[in-house]
Amino acid sequence: MTTFQAKIYVTLRPSVLDPAGTAVRSGLEHMGYDNVDQVRIGKYVELSLSAESEAAAAEQLDRMCDQLLANPVIENYRFEISATH
Amino acid sequence: MTTFQAKIYVTLRPSVLDPAGTAVRSGLEHMGYDNVDQVRIGKYVELSLSAESEAAAAEQLDRMCDQLLANPVIENYRFEISATH
Repeated sequence: MTTFQAKIYVTLRPSVLDPAGTAVRSGLEHMGYDNVDQVRIGKYVELSLSAESEAAAAEQLDRMCDQLLANPVIENYRFEISATH
Repeated sequence: MTTFQAKIYVTLRPSVLDPAGTAVRSGLEHMGYDNVDQVRIGKYVELSLSAESEAAAAEQLDRMCDQLLANPVIENYRFEISATH
């Protein structure tokens, strides 16, 4: 078994409104940053998992994202995996 | 002025407890994923901003993160900038 480090990025689908992003953009504008646009807020998850291979880790991460870490109806996800030594 | 796309990663400092990460790890364990460890949950922000140069964009992003996007007392941040054409 190898230990892998995974970085998972969960983002709202482009068609889904992002009220938190709109609020941050508005807050930035009130602070004087009026050159900022298209603020979208997502989640960033780091975890480690042990698996037989990188392919097995990726397959498990896909299931974990679909079942718990992301809401596939409104969110997309992608991840990066690296073996830790 | 050039438009830059920024990807900002906000993570809890290693010394700060992450109850949400602990809850996700526990949830994954209950779902049968007992090979997962060290779950840490952060924020991922995408935005576009216009600036004279990449250095100016980076300098502004630093200020925006310190003032609004991250809490420097408990969080670290890093970002990537790319010019959009």
